[in-house]
Amino acid sequence: MRFHTRKWVKPEDLNPNGTLFGGKLLAWIDEEAALYSIVQLENQRVVTKHMSEINFMSSAKQGDIVEIGMEVVRFGKTSIVLKSEVRNKMTRETIIKVDTITMVNLDSSGKSLPHGKTQIEYVKDRIKKD
Amino acid sequence: MRFHTRKWVKPEDLNPNGTLFGGKLLAWIDEEAALYSIVQLENQRVVTKHMSEINFMSSAKQGDIVEIGMEVVRFGKTSIVLKSEVRNKMTRETIIKVDTITMVNLDSSGKSLPHGKTQIEYVKDRIKKD
Amino acid sequence: MRFHTRKWVKPEDLNPNGTLFGGKLLAWIDEEAALYSIVQLENQRVVTKHMSEINFMSSAKQGDIVEIGMEVVRFGKTSIVLKSEVRNKMTRETIIKVDTITMVNLDSSGKSLPHGKTQIEYVKDRIKKD
Amino acid sequence: MRFHTRKWVKPEDLNPNGTLFGGKLLAWIDEEAALYSIVQLENQRVVTKHMSEINFMSSAKQGDIVEIGMEVVRFGKTSIVLKSEVRNKMTRETIIKVDTITMVNLDSSGKSLPHGKTQIEYVKDRIKKD
Amino acid sequence: MRFHTRKWVKPEDLNPNGTLFGGKLLAWIDEEAALYSIVQLENQRVVTKHMSEINFMSSAKQGDIVEIGMEVVRFGKTSIVLKSEVRNKMTRETIIKVDTITMVNLDSSGKSLPHGKTQIEYVKDRIKKD
Amino acid sequence: MRFHTRKWVKPEDLNPNGTLFGGKLLAWIDEEAALYSIVQLENQRVVTKHMSEINFMSSAKQGDIVEIGMEVVRFGKTSIVLKSEVRNKMTRETIIKVDTITMVNLDSSGKSLPHGKTQIEYVKDRIKKD
Repeated sequence: MRFHTRKWVKPEDLNPNGTLFGGKLLAWIDEEAALYSIVQLENQRVVTKHMSEINFMSSAKQGDIVEIGMEVVRFGKTSIVLKSEVRNKMTRETIIKVDTITMVNLDSSGKSLPHGKTQIEYVKDRIKKD
Repeated sequence: MRFHTRKWVKPEDLNPNGTLFGGKLLAWIDEEAALYSIVQLENQRVVTKHMSEINFMSSAKQGDIVEIGMEVVRFGKTSIVLKSEVRNKMTRETIIKVDTITMVNLDSSGKSLPHGKTQIEYVKDRIKKD
Repeated sequence: MRFHTRKWVKPEDLNPNGTLFGGKLLAWIDEEAALYSIVQLENQRVVTKHMSEINFMSSAKQGDIVEIGMEVVRFGKTSIVLKSEVRNKMTRETIIKVDTITMVNLDSSGKSLPHGKTQIEYVKDRIKKD
Repeated sequence: MRFHTRKWVKPEDLNPNGTLFGGKLLAWIDEEAALYSIVQLENQRVVTKHMSEINFMSSAKQGDIVEIGMEVVRFGKTSIVLKSEVRNKMTRETIIKVDTITMVNLDSSGKSLPHGKTQIEYVKDRIKKD
Repeated sequence: MRFHTRKWVKPEDLNPNGTLFGGKLLAWIDEEAALYSIVQLENQRVVTKHMSEINFMSSAKQGDIVEIGMEVVRFGKTSIVLKSEVRNKMTRETIIKVDTITMVNLDSSGKSLPHGKTQIEYVKDRIKKD
Repeated sequence: MRFHTRKWVKPEDLNPNGTLFGGKLLAWIDEEAALYSIVQLENQRVVTKHMSEINFMSSAKQGDIVEIGMEVVRFGKTSIVLKSEVRNKMTRETIIKVDTITMVNLDSSGKSLPHGKTQIEYVKDRIKKD
């Protein structure tokens, strides 16, 4: 799994108990899943359809740095299935795990659309090919 | 299921496709689960431990009003298990469903703590009793 | 008065003295008044026209749960007049009171529009009737 | 009345109808009243106690610049009473008016505290005097 | 230099060390530069093109009031060059300084557009002239 | 330069002209510089001291994905000097460039503190060594 996006846990990210608000963490994962899918499917209209069960394994506190990992599980015809883990950047302790996040590729009218992708591509290779 | 909290979908709640951002929806559910648990368990130190799979059944758009439902599935010894549904207030269409959300009751040092509750209570009854 | 929407007071809701920021509270009331009116008037174009005097009776602190109550005072021809109270969910202490909030029903060009409503309706009854 | 703070109306400040969200406007006024009082009373513990009726006279749209005016109505023993007007910076059209905003000076335990001020002071004069 | 906009440093503005987040400060300066330029150039399509080096001279803490100063350095043909200083309102200590901020005037297609201005104007004078 | 953190440009990130708000971009860079320094210096108390001139080379629009690059220019005794570039993830077009960002390492009383680092380290190597 590759870990790209990093977040610095600020006061605005905390719940009233002073630890990282779970809802904020879920929002970060959902954003990362969306943008990862957009890059892979080369289409900006991608929506979250399903998440498998979510385990909150440890928490994070103000000042911690967390990093969000994404990995492709499989390519469907109109979907892409991802796996995600968020961990503490400094200690590598796992904070949250989601086994499958299903994102669906849409056309401009909001209907599911085959994306024609079967494997991970890197932007640098796409650009080189042109 | 009782639906309490309502949200008015504003520009700041949208994803770049102009529909309700899934991450925002998850944050709303997590906040409602937390505050519902705090009221039931009469303890402010409650954290999200687990969510079962999440189905994104329909979306919402700017100006829609959504309401967030919570229901107790069961009381554990140190936990409370909730069920949640978010729906469109005007059309009653279901937007998202989560079958179980497990919240854990903590003591001041962050360890799980028996809460002694076995059934739903209403604040008005607690206040009358005093 | 019926109390629906609930908020969990988080660090991002505080003023620099560590109590609930009054401006945030006013924003919560205004949002609730707007969405309550939209549901009653069955029109998404509703704006705040006037609020009567506002009494800040007590405050709230991080971790408190507050609930926002709304009640119809009267239906005007193009307006609806509401009354609001915000209280602490656990102690029932009143935080803020506003006797009248006047919301105006608009047409698509932004002019006031008769709404034809004279009494409170519930969405469940509207849906049953269809 | 002197107009200091200016705001640029951004997408995050809009209600779902695309005009400036009334709740955001009220939050801006409350913040300005608080900071104006802190400067005058030379005490950071100041809270909003009361606002007189509020007239929403016109709206603002994305891209507009609004400016927030404050004026002292009178100094009480433990309070300061302000008057506020928000207007469109370019057209000078009034957006909202509040005749009295009562702010109370508190001691460190949260009780009202005489502030000893009877007239407006400017920071530059205080600094010169030293 | 004239200081207009004031900000009250709230928990949501802090970095995890509990002082004013530098990124928030830069966002405040950029917004003030934009709105100042819009007022001067009488055009809402103005973008930031360049900032000279930025010195973070001191910090601010929760509850502080900061004020943002702007001054015109010169008018270009399609641009306006500003100078900015942010200081603590109560102590007048300088927090940050930026010697030049270059804002560019755009037409509706996003191309730079001559603005025809050569000196500072005040809105009150423009309105009187009509 | 390595590009880690990615952002999906959402409505809340836009200026009133509908392009990415420059202030938001500066806040993203400042956060990335802070967290990059914290990881390198193994100290959570790191503050921004200086940024060299900033060139806004192109903009981004709603739905774009941007990635933030950081590179170490040099290690000072109590500081670390970084270089940053933000680019469009899909087109690789440069959005903004900052040649030097100087971050200072502080002790618990807020004074600059030698950090003892002279080269880039990776967390995985630190953990292996233990």
